[in-house]
Amino acid sequence: MIPMIPPILDFATGRLAGAELVEKSTTLADLQGLFVDPHAEAALPSETRLYRVAMLPGHGGEGDLNMGVTYLEAGRVGQEFFMTRGHLHARAEQAEYYFGLCGQGVLLLQDMAGVCRLERVFAGSVHHIPGHVAHRLINTGETQLSALAVWPAVAGHDYGALGARGFDLRVLAGEDGTPRIVTSAGQAT
Amino acid sequence: MIPMIPPILDFATGRLAGAELVEKSTTLADLQGLFVDPHAEAALPSETRLYRVAMLPGHGGEGDLNMGVTYLEAGRVGQEFFMTRGHLHARAEQAEYYFGLCGQGVLLLQDMAGVCRLERVFAGSVHHIPGHVAHRLINTGETQLSALAVWPAVAGHDYGALGARGFDLRVLAGEDGTPRIVTSAGQAT
Repeated sequence: MIPMIPPILDFATGRLAGAELVEKSTTLADLQGLFVDPHAEAALPSETRLYRVAMLPGHGGEGDLNMGVTYLEAGRVGQEFFMTRGHLHARAEQAEYYFGLCGQGVLLLQDMAGVCRLERVFAGSVHHIPGHVAHRLINTGETQLSALAVWPAVAGHDYGALGARGFDLRVLAGEDGTPRIVTSAGQAT
Repeated sequence: MIPMIPPILDFATGRLAGAELVEKSTTLADLQGLFVDPHAEAALPSETRLYRVAMLPGHGGEGDLNMGVTYLEAGRVGQEFFMTRGHLHARAEQAEYYFGLCGQGVLLLQDMAGVCRLERVFAGSVHHIPGHVAHRLINTGETQLSALAVWPAVAGHDYGALGARGFDLRVLAGEDGTPRIVTSAGQAT
């Protein structure tokens, strides 16, 4: 019996290879109204790709796990850094692990009471996302941000759970380009 | 609000840092009788450390995930390469992901019907371990083998599930030191 060559994740580049991947791209049009500045949003091509997720094909079922890599482009909508839509799990008690691979960013975590936490994302950063905590990646760097994720196959996505309020924090670029964290009402934190 | 610095996994060395880790060491004495050659086992100091697992402190509970890194030393008990005890999950339907970090080895997978599969483990290798599949790491290289694991907090360990039979395959060093796979009865596969 010869040992099989499994799929390979290149930690240096974030590239996933060696398996039939399931891929999903998200454009600015898909996230209409998510960014704070509608004029800046309208000024960008709606087909601008913000991020892509590549995952191993899942077989699903109770107890199974999925894995995938998110590739979030560098860029801004006005002063606001490119970010993922963010979500809570449909089975809200299900947790997730993220591992930063390439680039620089932050992971925004928000619990059901609205309490927010930010964690720096970089090559090798380890992020435990407990159940009942909404999560969003934000690329504050000048290169693509990629992160490995492992999550329960039954978790699912609930994009509406935060309601009209959405996440309570936004990450904008200050005048010198460095990240500045404000509440969704625009106040500095 | 300043983004927090999370725990860090150094992909180049497998080292986990920045958090209070839970650590567990396993010596040859802990695995008494696991290796095929009792004379070779008796010839080694019983306190010889075979592997160590470092994990982030878990909070447990349904839906939560654990993460840890296994560091499996290079060496042999007679002709048999150092390996982990191997286990099935106590909640057997719970899956796991392994990611090779450093070194060279194989992951031995055995399902409930006794069907075995071997996957090469190396830096960046990605291993999906479905539920109901026993798993063991084997270090066939000349340096420490390390692998990141993510698994459901409720999975638990069942070391007895394979019964007296144990795993059906063993990985031995051939005369030139390269891995040779045999059945537990000693037959080449």
